[in-house]
Amino acid sequence: MEPESGPDSPSSAGKRAGRLYVVGLGPGSRDLMVPAARDALEKASHIIGYETYVRLAGPFRSDQQLHGSDNRVELDRAAHAFALAAQGEDVAIVSSGDPGVFAMASAVLEALDNATDDRWRRVDLVIVPGVTAAQSVAMRAGAPLGHDFCIISLSDNLKPWEVIEKRLSLAAQADFVIGLYNPISKARPWQLGRAFQLLLETRAPQTPVILGRDIDRDGETLTVTSLGEVHPKQVDMRTCVIVGSSATRLIKRADGGVWVYTPRFYSLNPDPHQG
Amino acid sequence: MEPESGPDSPSSAGKRAGRLYVVGLGPGSRDLMVPAARDALEKASHIIGYETYVRLAGPFRSDQQLHGSDNRVELDRAAHAFALAAQGEDVAIVSSGDPGVFAMASAVLEALDNATDDRWRRVDLVIVPGVTAAQSVAMRAGAPLGHDFCIISLSDNLKPWEVIEKRLSLAAQADFVIGLYNPISKARPWQLGRAFQLLLETRAPQTPVILGRDIDRDGETLTVTSLGEVHPKQVDMRTCVIVGSSATRLIKRADGGVWVYTPRFYSLNPDPHQG
Repeated sequence: MEPESGPDSPSSAGKRAGRLYVVGLGPGSRDLMVPAARDALEKASHIIGYETYVRLAGPFRSDQQLHGSDNRVELDRAAHAFALAAQGEDVAIVSSGDPGVFAMASAVLEALDNATDDRWRRVDLVIVPGVTAAQSVAMRAGAPLGHDFCIISLSDNLKPWEVIEKRLSLAAQADFVIGLYNPISKARPWQLGRAFQLLLETRAPQTPVILGRDIDRDGETLTVTSLGEVHPKQVDMRTCVIVGSSATRLIKRADGGVWVYTPRFYSLNPDPHQG
Repeated sequence: MEPESGPDSPSSAGKRAGRLYVVGLGPGSRDLMVPAARDALEKASHIIGYETYVRLAGPFRSDQQLHGSDNRVELDRAAHAFALAAQGEDVAIVSSGDPGVFAMASAVLEALDNATDDRWRRVDLVIVPGVTAAQSVAMRAGAPLGHDFCIISLSDNLKPWEVIEKRLSLAAQADFVIGLYNPISKARPWQLGRAFQLLLETRAPQTPVILGRDIDRDGETLTVTSLGEVHPKQVDMRTCVIVGSSATRLIKRADGGVWVYTPRFYSLNPDPHQG
């Protein structure tokens, strides 16, 4: 914080660069947003993000500028944030969940990687983590992620579908619990059904499948079904899907529901009580 | 909250069952612990956990009973928690990180699954999530988990080593970013070196490797190296290891360090700028 001479000093570089917070809002409520995220949202003079998330992040003071966008062009948003921060503004760019997991942190670093304006490199970049969708679905379901797992985005907007199929098959062979992000959308209607089919080639129909929708928000729903029973029509883009491994188990709850968990032990013997 | 008759009512079942919070403390500081975790720690009259984590979770009031243990028998701790909660006490059982990710939530549900005391099933079980180690290492490094990834525990205490080798090989073929939990210990000295060897069969020596130790605690260190250069001696049990995919990239920072990120796009063409 001391003034110093050199290429990064205010005197040689013009205005001091600001700070860019990449903030995870968590699943929805303030109860599940880390205090560091709340602090960043208070300190920033500009809040940037997809409109729904900017609304979720509020309320804000009248001296804070909101830049909600309805486009999905994350790189534009990241560039906007760097441009403001390079001028000395403190900026928060918001994501739901954890910005580091299929969210804005990668887009922000892509923008930095491609930067032509050297002032962007002097921006003080701070990533503030959050509870990601797979974790919030898991907390309501029990402990499905209690053993080795993977997270795969089913969106083929940014990667070839053949890569996704290969990953699903290898993940099934590895007997990972599998979290599916971006499971379905109007533009991608058949991919989720195909993914379930692929997993059924390796996993039993009774494998537990968890569908968590709007967890920690109004009207949240949690559905526990199985790989043999689940239908893509039960899933929309606000749903996170978790497919159990061969070891994932159910426990009846006193309220009539079930808990789903994956034991910490894993045995080559199919009876998990041998573990 | 209304009194009601039935098998779960106080009149037929004796004392009302208490609540059991399974609490994630996050990586270390209060800034990264969700408010719901802090609330649970305030409401519980008993705090149970590995001694280091109970200390980390404090300070507590004099009317709260602390049950720190130095043993690693998670099932005993879970059983102790259920026994207290079944008697009507509110209990918090603490884990670092996220209790749902290789931590206490699975042990708690295992204990419930094996319960012989029916009162355990009436305990109000609440899982409170936290920022897990891979996320806190990722936030300091940039965005290494920005694309498909998996998390594998290298501990062969609870699963056969051959399962771990198989998963590592399949994860490498899938080109997942790989987070390694429980990477090494005095009792498991050679497994991490073998894991790096296995990954080198599929991944290039220049693949970025991130070693995050005590992130968000005093004396935290972050090391960015490569699969060809990393040595198991750089890692201890307080380190979380993240191995990049073929697409994971480095960006030079103004302070001399590097950012590590995995782009959101993925191309079959090895040049990620084609994406």
